[in-house]
Amino acid sequence: MSSPTPRRAPAGAAVLREDVTEAIRAAVFEELAAVGFARMSIEGIARRAGVGKTAVYRRWKSKLALVLDLVGAVAAQGLPAPATGSLEGDVRALLTAASHALRHPIASQVIPELLVEAARQPEIAAPVRAALLDGQEGVVAQIVREAVARGELPEGADPGRALDLVVGPLYWRLVVARTEPPAGYVDDLTRAAVAALRTL
Amino acid sequence: MSSPTPRRAPAGAAVLREDVTEAIRAAVFEELAAVGFARMSIEGIARRAGVGKTAVYRRWKSKLALVLDLVGAVAAQGLPAPATGSLEGDVRALLTAASHALRHPIASQVIPELLVEAARQPEIAAPVRAALLDGQEGVVAQIVREAVARGELPEGADPGRALDLVVGPLYWRLVVARTEPPAGYVDDLTRAAVAALRTL
Repeated sequence: MSSPTPRRAPAGAAVLREDVTEAIRAAVFEELAAVGFARMSIEGIARRAGVGKTAVYRRWKSKLALVLDLVGAVAAQGLPAPATGSLEGDVRALLTAASHALRHPIASQVIPELLVEAARQPEIAAPVRAALLDGQEGVVAQIVREAVARGELPEGADPGRALDLVVGPLYWRLVVARTEPPAGYVDDLTRAAVAALRTL
Repeated sequence: MSSPTPRRAPAGAAVLREDVTEAIRAAVFEELAAVGFARMSIEGIARRAGVGKTAVYRRWKSKLALVLDLVGAVAAQGLPAPATGSLEGDVRALLTAASHALRHPIASQVIPELLVEAARQPEIAAPVRAALLDGQEGVVAQIVREAVARGELPEGADPGRALDLVVGPLYWRLVVARTEPPAGYVDDLTRAAVAALRTL
């Protein structure tokens, strides 16, 4: 009959810390769905997660920091390194990942909500923009660079315009129009985007 | 010395009715900018417009109906009939009009806000979608139809995908990324969209 060994306490504490973080993350998504960003409070998150407010503040300094951290993670979810060796392959991989990220239940609600807040409070525009766009901007810039190096895109092709052309139609369909894309949509969009990119 | 003729009273009343409608419209835009859709009330609109609540309710049955009416008008603002005789000319005319509409101060704030409300209240999703998209959907469908008739696009080209390809990149740039487009952006987007449409 052994009593719990001391070794187990730290391991248990680490697990517990991770559990708390996970409980807070889950609570944030539930609160966002229930009341939205504007009306959500750290208090409500803590209550739903079954933890104290300090447990939240120990991890994130504000509601905005917390939400941007989570949204940034969703936006960057599974973003591929452009490694297929062709422009078309790289664009297809990016659109496939973005299509999953934008179908996340939180994306079509919280992204527009963060854009509303950013329009109303210019001081949060930059962090909101960074959380939503930095990951995709980086990947598209690299896709363009490698396509230029392979001679698939013209020298000097603008990565900013490229991001608009690749991600814009998908975002419009999934977040604005919100109609279910037809079968083969990502493939069709890939061919269309590559043709569009070649005009850059 | 003639006294005012009876003809003038109705004319004056008509002008007044239009003034009230205009005052309400202006008040709605100001309230949207100040407090946003969710917190805006008919009472607040009436107060700002200097009219009674009944003057508002006589014209629109609810806050949502009022805002969708105004937003629909902005979204459809100057939407061109596709009459240039070429796919490229028609796409350029549409993108030019959409670019003005999306730069309207209210567009980048209230469209995301309506999308948030639609995600939270499924019963308003259809009217929100209709106000935002119906005008552009109709124009793009006609552009595609005429381009198919001229042999510029393949038989059976899907107007839904066409709308995503034409409007998506512009919306993404002006409403999501919110970075100032470079010089010549609408021309570049036109060439890119036409190339993309040809893959349909």
